[in-house]
Amino acid sequence: MTLSPSSPVAAASVREGAVPVAPAHGPLRGVSVSDVDFDPEGFWGRRQAVNAAATFGHCLDWMERLGWLSNFDHVARGETIIDRPGWQFSDSEVYKLLEGMAWELGRRDDAELSATFDALVSRVGAAQDADGYLSTAFGHPGLPPRYSDLAMGHELYTMGHLLQAAVARVRTGRPGDAIVQIARRVADHICTEFGDSGRDAVCGHPEIELALAEAGRALGERRYLEQARLFVKRRGRGTLPVPPLQSVEYFQDDRPVREADVLRGHAVRALYLSAGAVDVAVDTEDAELLAALAAQWERTVARRTYLTGGMGSRHQDEGFGEDFELPADRAYCETCAGVASVMFAWRLYLATGDVRYPDLIERTLFNVVATSPSADGRSFFYANPLHQREAAAEALDGVNTRAEGGVRAPWFEVSCCPTNVARTLASLGAYVAAQDAEGIAVLQYAAGSIRIGGFALTIDTAYPDAGRIVVRFDAAPAHPARLRLRIPPWASDATVVVRGGDSSAAPPGWWDLTDTFLPGDEIVLELPTAPRFTWPDPRIDAVRGAVAVERGPLVLCAESTDLPAGVSLDTLRVNTSSSPIPDGDGAAIEVAVTPLPVAGVMPYVDSVAAPAPTSTHPVRLVPYHRWAERGPSTMRVFVPELS
Amino acid sequence: MTLSPSSPVAAASVREGAVPVAPAHGPLRGVSVSDVDFDPEGFWGRRQAVNAAATFGHCLDWMERLGWLSNFDHVARGETIIDRPGWQFSDSEVYKLLEGMAWELGRRDDAELSATFDALVSRVGAAQDADGYLSTAFGHPGLPPRYSDLAMGHELYTMGHLLQAAVARVRTGRPGDAIVQIARRVADHICTEFGDSGRDAVCGHPEIELALAEAGRALGERRYLEQARLFVKRRGRGTLPVPPLQSVEYFQDDRPVREADVLRGHAVRALYLSAGAVDVAVDTEDAELLAALAAQWERTVARRTYLTGGMGSRHQDEGFGEDFELPADRAYCETCAGVASVMFAWRLYLATGDVRYPDLIERTLFNVVATSPSADGRSFFYANPLHQREAAAEALDGVNTRAEGGVRAPWFEVSCCPTNVARTLASLGAYVAAQDAEGIAVLQYAAGSIRIGGFALTIDTAYPDAGRIVVRFDAAPAHPARLRLRIPPWASDATVVVRGGDSSAAPPGWWDLTDTFLPGDEIVLELPTAPRFTWPDPRIDAVRGAVAVERGPLVLCAESTDLPAGVSLDTLRVNTSSSPIPDGDGAAIEVAVTPLPVAGVMPYVDSVAAPAPTSTHPVRLVPYHRWAERGPSTMRVFVPELS
Repeated sequence: MTLSPSSPVAAASVREGAVPVAPAHGPLRGVSVSDVDFDPEGFWGRRQAVNAAATFGHCLDWMERLGWLSNFDHVARGETIIDRPGWQFSDSEVYKLLEGMAWELGRRDDAELSATFDALVSRVGAAQDADGYLSTAFGHPGLPPRYSDLAMGHELYTMGHLLQAAVARVRTGRPGDAIVQIARRVADHICTEFGDSGRDAVCGHPEIELALAEAGRALGERRYLEQARLFVKRRGRGTLPVPPLQSVEYFQDDRPVREADVLRGHAVRALYLSAGAVDVAVDTEDAELLAALAAQWERTVARRTYLTGGMGSRHQDEGFGEDFELPADRAYCETCAGVASVMFAWRLYLATGDVRYPDLIERTLFNVVATSPSADGRSFFYANPLHQREAAAEALDGVNTRAEGGVRAPWFEVSCCPTNVARTLASLGAYVAAQDAEGIAVLQYAAGSIRIGGFALTIDTAYPDAGRIVVRFDAAPAHPARLRLRIPPWASDATVVVRGGDSSAAPPGWWDLTDTFLPGDEIVLELPTAPRFTWPDPRIDAVRGAVAVERGPLVLCAESTDLPAGVSLDTLRVNTSSSPIPDGDGAAIEVAVTPLPVAGVMPYVDSVAAPAPTSTHPVRLVPYHRWAERGPSTMRVFVPELS
Repeated sequence: MTLSPSSPVAAASVREGAVPVAPAHGPLRGVSVSDVDFDPEGFWGRRQAVNAAATFGHCLDWMERLGWLSNFDHVARGETIIDRPGWQFSDSEVYKLLEGMAWELGRRDDAELSATFDALVSRVGAAQDADGYLSTAFGHPGLPPRYSDLAMGHELYTMGHLLQAAVARVRTGRPGDAIVQIARRVADHICTEFGDSGRDAVCGHPEIELALAEAGRALGERRYLEQARLFVKRRGRGTLPVPPLQSVEYFQDDRPVREADVLRGHAVRALYLSAGAVDVAVDTEDAELLAALAAQWERTVARRTYLTGGMGSRHQDEGFGEDFELPADRAYCETCAGVASVMFAWRLYLATGDVRYPDLIERTLFNVVATSPSADGRSFFYANPLHQREAAAEALDGVNTRAEGGVRAPWFEVSCCPTNVARTLASLGAYVAAQDAEGIAVLQYAAGSIRIGGFALTIDTAYPDAGRIVVRFDAAPAHPARLRLRIPPWASDATVVVRGGDSSAAPPGWWDLTDTFLPGDEIVLELPTAPRFTWPDPRIDAVRGAVAVERGPLVLCAESTDLPAGVSLDTLRVNTSSSPIPDGDGAAIEVAVTPLPVAGVMPYVDSVAAPAPTSTHPVRLVPYHRWAERGPSTMRVFVPELS
């Protein structure tokens, strides 16, 4: 199915819906972002509203102030560029913001946002070269030549993000938009430059693979998918020079994608590459590649993933660690890796229908993606450690190298995370439901409404604060169809009541009911949200002897903010013989306060005795996603157990 | 006391002795390297012999092969330099090797080594500019201008190492040597360029401070010390631009030296800076600065130092972590940081006489410095982690980025460690004894002989394999003088027998005897070398619930090499109720083998029960300093306890 450039692309977008991922094959289709309305008072609705009202403008202001936007104007005017502001990939932040705005505009009309979008696209388009190449960091007077630093230059990565913004525009019903034309020229340029008879090379930072695959789907251009396939195939031959002192796995260029057995190296790179490789595997019906990626996901989640869903154990390389190398304090867990993990898992879900993928997506959304932005949507975590040893001296303001200091920062030198959060929140609806030949599946529980597969559902819930989820049918097909609800793996005591009948157990996995549903039907799912202890695998040395508390999908944490004056987080020991109890949106646990050892010359001794606790009292734990919201603090997800 | 350039420098060197550190003030003087002869079969004598016989030539070969030596020839010939091999600081490896050779030649005649030394110096000297500047990486045709990258250019760092080589030459009786003249011109140039009326700047990598201080002492040039003082004083004003994504503490330029309370940032930088600051504090009689440095050492050792004495918890920044951030698996513990820690502690010892400094020096020498080189002196560890999760695939050969793979490597892109080991082993005698007004102190126990303060001692011992140390007086002053022996902090049951008398307890710290000693007198010190368990401070999360075994000054470790086939290191649990017993140069401990948990989707579970051991048997532990000598292995210093 190769369509010419003049093919009716609108038709493709209608078939696909307003979704970020639309595989050519596979059992499942996601829900259109335009068919999901979150309750503006709900967990995600509130965040999506703040995102549109504050984060978009915040990002735009920063990029204007720092000159990242005028980079486009300088190129457009043909000026010789000296001391260009921003990293080589700063254009990509503009594109991710455009993508976020496009999804937002796909959900609701907003004339002001629409005008902002068009004005931005106009500045971007003016900087495009006649042959389609688009970059403000290379290939223009005063800048290094095109593709002179494929390893670290990020040109294809950056253009990939532009393609994704255009895909969002096509799928939200604007196939004739200017950005779509720009993107088509970009994609054509890349196919010419890097095609079979072009440069035999890949980009140091994967992203172009998934972008080309999606652009190919949205624009009906099989050539783009073929180019994505080529990029995936070319990776793993060691053609990218490893930067000094970085690991050979950094670029995932040490081993072909289909031969790897786990994700490794730079986490965001690894996850974007994997997501793009799934797109290629699915659309080319490459079952072997798909199986390899699923196996890599499985080992990565079983051995290289934090309790929060966070990925990336090392600040060095921003990379994955070895199996079970999961330090809590130096957890990198970049926000963007959380976003990328959702993208990878979502694609695997669409390809397989396996419940483990939306399970991980839920964990990652609540505990990584929701953790990054502040409540006002104007500051962000870049790294998301599970243990903060020292409280930050003060709130960060201005541009930060990275928010490692235990407080969210407004902007970063490498500012990938704010715009990645922005586009994810704007398109979040896409991940809550899916349809297949049998019917529909509700994957994520959020107050609001969903229209999919002939169904119109209202979801009435205070989830995750409460576990009661009422699914009301406002419309349904007139024939039997399957309703499938995801029961999270921690919900071992979940129950379902159908149309006011008896309560029945719904074990983790899929709960299915095939029936002819009628408007007014109600299904009530009760997920247990009593706080619970969670223990790490004994091979995770970094948190041996410690325990975490979770509540529903939320990982909780202890913050110094909640401790009595003079009590250090280091002195707490959890008594796991008494269960944690609900406390607001968190929990209270019983802790013993134990004296710290007397300091010696070195922190090692030739005998130990468990110190006798000096006091015992309950301590409040708060959801991890809102840690450090009340000012700088020390924090722990895993607290040592009382021995 | 300002001497003119024509002062009798030979007199200064004779006064100082063949020592790496000769403070102008302070209670103590170290022993000359020429007055210590290690038994060539002893622990250190063997290593010192291998160092001279193999490591010197090994380093020289690599530097010749890689073009690091011809860099000097190109500059000397005034050629335009294109694609210069080596990092900006590669000259410093040549200088550290020269320093090592100088100490070696100070201990024994070796015509071939002497000729090699002279030839090298001749190549170096030919590259020196008329005004004294010396660098093959800056300031010549094709290279960046002088001092155009003070933050990362390492020019002063590099020239500092040349000064140290010259100091070694002066103090080993060659004050008229060519390298001394070169060094004097270098130091004069630096004073002119960076003096009070020159550039108000510092070098990104400290080292010039201690080098100028020592050059000032050895050459009788107070100006050089004054320049060192200026550099120390200028640091901490944030004048060095922090490289992208590195921490503000990286250069120790965030806070003045005298205001800091702990070592932070890049570990080798922090330690060299501290060593130079002690030199400045002592010679300028700045008690406040000295006290600040002693307090920084104290907190660093109590909270940021590994059991091995290793320093540096982070690969990122090659830096110190926060207090108690001491991961075993990602311990950086750079070999050079071990060397630098010895340099810092030694200076504090000379200034204060506090026994804690030689205590740490012993720990660091046996467990970091001795760990780096292979038995043949031709491969080296750069990082020295305390836990190896995955065995290396194969032995590294050729140039490596860093030896992180669990096997020693012949050479590195940043190859600071091999030459640092080389100069330390060649000058090791300097650290074994000292003298003050009361007499002498024996600080480190190694088979061999020592001449100091009118004493000639023979040390007869198999230490550290055995704890019996016989100190025999071959000569002694004819008047009463104090013999002081260091009793290590772990030696709680040490005993001493004087002249065959009764055994008496010698508690940790100093054991003193003031007497008129006679030739033939013998004092027998018995240090307990039964293996012992050592537990970490509970704030070191990374090794909670685990225990180490030490034997005398040696940290031991469990290696997969010593496990039965099919038994993984991850399954071992130590039963600390039965004491470890001696086994060769290591120990045997009783371990339980426990089953690994069944893999779930994620490595976190909602209930735990201590698994029942499937078997119990003794496991051999070997000295950490020789881990990975029998091929790639997994390794642990801290092994979890049986709960």
